Amino acid sequence: MLANKIENSLLHHLSRATPNHRFSEIYKYTVVPGGKYFRPSLAWCILHDLNEKLFINSIDQPRSAHSLFASALEIHHAYTLVHDDLPSMDNDLERRGKPAAHVAFGEWQAILCGDGLLNLSYQLLSEMPYSKNAALTLKIFSRSLGPKGLIQGQVLDLNCEMTNSLMHTITTHELKTARLIQVAITGSALLARDEKSLQMAFQYNNEKQLWKFSRLLGIHFQFIDDLTELASKSLSEHEKAINPWPMFTNELYNYLLKNLEEFKFLSEKLNLVQTNKFLADYYQQMAKIIEEGKIEINCHLKTSIDLDPIIFFLDRFALR
Amino acid sequence: MLANKIENSLLHHLSRATPNHRFSEIYKYTVVPGGKYFRPSLAWCILHDLNEKLFINSIDQPRSAHSLFASALEIHHAYTLVHDDLPSMDNDLERRGKPAAHVAFGEWQAILCGDGLLNLSYQLLSEMPYSKNAALTLKIFSRSLGPKGLIQGQVLDLNCEMTNSLMHTITTHELKTARLIQVAITGSALLARDEKSLQMAFQYNNEKQLWKFSRLLGIHFQFIDDLTELASKSLSEHEKAINPWPMFTNELYNYLLKNLEEFKFLSEKLNLVQTNKFLADYYQQMAKIIEEGKIEINCHLKTSIDLDPIIFFLDRFALR
Repeated sequence: MLANKIENSLLHHLSRATPNHRFSEIYKYTVVPGGKYFRPSLAWCILHDLNEKLFINSIDQPRSAHSLFASALEIHHAYTLVHDDLPSMDNDLERRGKPAAHVAFGEWQAILCGDGLLNLSYQLLSEMPYSKNAALTLKIFSRSLGPKGLIQGQVLDLNCEMTNSLMHTITTHELKTARLIQVAITGSALLARDEKSLQMAFQYNNEKQLWKFSRLLGIHFQFIDDLTELASKSLSEHEKAINPWPMFTNELYNYLLKNLEEFKFLSEKLNLVQTNKFLADYYQQMAKIIEEGKIEINCHLKTSIDLDPIIFFLDRFALR
Repeated sequence: MLANKIENSLLHHLSRATPNHRFSEIYKYTVVPGGKYFRPSLAWCILHDLNEKLFINSIDQPRSAHSLFASALEIHHAYTLVHDDLPSMDNDLERRGKPAAHVAFGEWQAILCGDGLLNLSYQLLSEMPYSKNAALTLKIFSRSLGPKGLIQGQVLDLNCEMTNSLMHTITTHELKTARLIQVAITGSALLARDEKSLQMAFQYNNEKQLWKFSRLLGIHFQFIDDLTELASKSLSEHEKAINPWPMFTNELYNYLLKNLEEFKFLSEKLNLVQTNKFLADYYQQMAKIIEEGKIEINCHLKTSIDLDPIIFFLDRFALR
């Protein structure tokens, strides 16, 4: 339901902001159907939690600040995937069950498609109604995703510095994965504040706490993703080589449990009902994959670990 | 002098906005020393013409709206060059007399450098002091350089649609070259309006006229660039194949003279003293190259043309 609305908004903006030319197919191809729409969904859930009235008034309006913001997040995410898949980058041939953009359309087409989507994400942000919080959101967005942010995460990854130590991996995940999630959550909270008549239901509206909350989320999101990848029997040599779990098994295990504990603590404090519900659904899917792939996962690790505490946490998140 | 100030501001922003990591060398390598700094120079000249007081107060302040804006223009321009040079794009091995970024640093490094610079251009815009005109400038910037703007110009170029007809070439030049120049001039004029105490010396401050003025400028800038390229004896087959002059000689000649006449008319009406002075210097250099390369140019064309009216226009622009 929420995913449908996100997709409709994306289609609306892609259709009006790309030219009437056959090249525009590639923009659509790379953005919809998306994956989980994890980032825009988080942005909407946070708005729902912080300002339900604004959520109701915004969700079906493609020109509302949050619709533009949510679309910008997903379109920015899509550009990073298109460029990541390029031959000189990860050289991935498939993405979301279909040929990668550079395979389906060609290499320069994929480069320009990525550049176009990157520009478009900022165009959508520039179209948000004029306000100080919109300006601040743009500032956080661009700083978090630029040379000191997401881009540097990609650099550390491709430079193979990520595998120097667990700390390097965490830094890479923080920059490459968590930053956009942090922007989604913190930006949405800032924009939720924007209505004059706003009566904040949310008592803990402290963007610093949300920044920390979403940092933990972004990092464990990526580590859980890495873990579920090991549940698959057919792992390519490349996938094996860059997965941090076999490299830092025990250290990483301890880190993840600590991260999840801290996250749980903050999550209880912040009491973001819709956000937690959305995450609970997602965690349950992940718990299932890990549960069913226990044997394969432990096969890929250097030392076997007890996966139950992780499964338990993910599966029971909703009940906490 | 102006070029030095532009370069210092670029170095300032690159140094603070890129990480303390050896990858950051590539950002510097691709931005400074730049070429003519044509776009930021235009932005500063327009400000000088429209609001001299603000020009004086801004030029040495890297955090002023115009310093941030001028740096964003050049950094955005640099990203387009880095990506244009990539093997799957134009496959150029040299840029500004040194190895292209992908040659000097590698291909994924050049892709990420371009992405980083693109993001950084928006980061700098997001740091301009909060104002309605800053927000409007960002809107014009992103719309002009996105999928319907500059990017589509690159698409038409690489798709070889540019050479379908002179009209196609003009459209491509308009999108790929003129848009950023239009943004430089119109954005600077908008930001020049921003001071409360502003007494506009400039009586014709109509952004629509400036949009038209800079459109003509951007298009003839590119056609003159194409023409001076023919003055070189050693032209690669690729350069020959994409130069519009041999393809549309007479038609293009007539178009250029008409464009320059219209431009002259608007330029007299707008009376932008500093801008015209800057352009006059540039035109004189171009006139000299064309004058000295007359024979080579006519060798490359299908029918010989009288270059004197063009040389005359360019050489005498300052005296008009």
